[in-house]
Amino acid sequence: MGKSVAIVGATGAVGRTMAKVIEEKNLNITKIGLFASKRSIGKKINIGSNEIIVEKTEIDKVSKYDYCLLAVDSKLSQKLAPELIKKGTIVIDNSSAFRLDHQVPLVVPEVNPQKAYNHKGIISNPNCSTIQMVLSLYPIHSISPIQRVVVSTYQSASGAGQKAVDELKNCTENVLNGVKCQNEAFIHPIAFSAIPHIDSFDPSGYTKEELKMSNETQKIMNSQIKVSATCVRIPTINCHCESINIQTKNKVTVTDALKAYEKFPSVKVWDNPKENIYPLPPNVDGYDDVFIGRIRQDKTIENGLNIWSVADNLRKGAATNAVQILELLI
Amino acid sequence: MGKSVAIVGATGAVGRTMAKVIEEKNLNITKIGLFASKRSIGKKINIGSNEIIVEKTEIDKVSKYDYCLLAVDSKLSQKLAPELIKKGTIVIDNSSAFRLDHQVPLVVPEVNPQKAYNHKGIISNPNCSTIQMVLSLYPIHSISPIQRVVVSTYQSASGAGQKAVDELKNCTENVLNGVKCQNEAFIHPIAFSAIPHIDSFDPSGYTKEELKMSNETQKIMNSQIKVSATCVRIPTINCHCESINIQTKNKVTVTDALKAYEKFPSVKVWDNPKENIYPLPPNVDGYDDVFIGRIRQDKTIENGLNIWSVADNLRKGAATNAVQILELLI
Repeated sequence: MGKSVAIVGATGAVGRTMAKVIEEKNLNITKIGLFASKRSIGKKINIGSNEIIVEKTEIDKVSKYDYCLLAVDSKLSQKLAPELIKKGTIVIDNSSAFRLDHQVPLVVPEVNPQKAYNHKGIISNPNCSTIQMVLSLYPIHSISPIQRVVVSTYQSASGAGQKAVDELKNCTENVLNGVKCQNEAFIHPIAFSAIPHIDSFDPSGYTKEELKMSNETQKIMNSQIKVSATCVRIPTINCHCESINIQTKNKVTVTDALKAYEKFPSVKVWDNPKENIYPLPPNVDGYDDVFIGRIRQDKTIENGLNIWSVADNLRKGAATNAVQILELLI
Repeated sequence: MGKSVAIVGATGAVGRTMAKVIEEKNLNITKIGLFASKRSIGKKINIGSNEIIVEKTEIDKVSKYDYCLLAVDSKLSQKLAPELIKKGTIVIDNSSAFRLDHQVPLVVPEVNPQKAYNHKGIISNPNCSTIQMVLSLYPIHSISPIQRVVVSTYQSASGAGQKAVDELKNCTENVLNGVKCQNEAFIHPIAFSAIPHIDSFDPSGYTKEELKMSNETQKIMNSQIKVSATCVRIPTINCHCESINIQTKNKVTVTDALKAYEKFPSVKVWDNPKENIYPLPPNVDGYDDVFIGRIRQDKTIENGLNIWSVADNLRKGAATNAVQILELLI
């Protein structure tokens, strides 16, 4: 029998993409409910040939669904998730609220699908830059255990939501017209800038985004892999990039890495410097895979590799991964 | 007695900034000549209260000057420099043509000024991203020798010249208006993208820009310091950013690093996460210093530090450094 699925936060950048991915995947779902905050009530969203009207998020209504994809902020997730679980709805939560909770599986379906079945009513969807990095690392890790990673990110506006995308566009237009740029969605004006500050600062001097890349990666890969991250917002609309330096236990050649990536699901290699081919944000937009390029030996350490990874952060970095988890459960 | 200085490539982004920096520095210069290619002849550039008319680059004319700042491409430098040296004009060359030549000093005045005096008619000005990194590293290196660096860059359009800046602006405007973006100055359209490809590819898979960051840094710092670089062009107008991971021989604490930076010339620390203070490209534009922020211990290795560095690539990354070399000689 078909299942019913609610998306909460359905009018946001991630929520809308979840609806799109569900439509594309043709899952055995008989009913989809879309929920959001007060101001979005009555909005209409098409899923396939059905026009669905957005309803106000109320536990009694959402809990009538078998599954709930939560695409809201941590604070709201913390409030809604326990109530939904109590009422028997299985929650897939996109926020960071429960990701490091030992009772809650944190799942990238290509890496640790078995964890998804062992849930207590809730499964967490990892952070966008983490999902992308884990898929970039795991095929290499399967050849030789990764010891340490130094990663610098180039993250897009859409990772901060639809308002942030609008602000990037407006702010850029203003700067081009010589008008000063106002910022609300970003901490500083984003137009023609690069802001090394995503999520809030931890007393260690790292941002929470940087710590997520370390803590979540360890949990998903079930490894003590060491991650040193610097997370930076840049003026791209969609798709995150990551410059990843990898140190493995034993030597992994470029050929080894290529072979490992080529047989791994959800990872594609675009790597042909002679033809100027490597993944770029505008070219990866709309795809569900993680794209790898610029694979090269790092000769400054014994067993080193450098890679360049690009993925659609709204899709594989958020919505697609969440819907894949849903797919595992259905 | 005052000296005479010619700037060749005077109408380009770097050449124009050289003229500006010379004006600001109030050096003991009695005559400035501006030279460029045919199509710029007759253009007028103001230096202080003097309006100078751009002349066609001809060896006979340029060699009448005591010093020549060359701000042209490698190929043209390779042709002009030997002829000027033969005629007795001392050349400060901004191109990569002679940088790794053992006979040619490669100088960052705060780091290896003594090399400047030991020239054979020509001194090379290092690559923009190298100058910035060397100044970001050297104060730390003075406390404890740096063993290895993993750097990812966020480089601005101006590093590729004035045409590239114009293309970034036009291309961005086109994309905002839904028009496809044409690219000439960049290998791919730069608007809302991140291109991991600066200068051409070497057979190793690294770009020449990435190799420069390694080879030039070793030469300037006279050290076997290992540098693993990934160089990326992002849609910023001016000022390069660098995410730098540093491994030192002995432990360097954040406090040690702060102290070392604070007493070092041409380096400024902007590092106060609580107040959202760290250097950003638009805020560093027009400054001669290198700005450091996000200084934090990297606990994934024994003696690790992460820093975020931003500098005006046309100024300290090119023109200012070249004029400082000139200053040493005068």
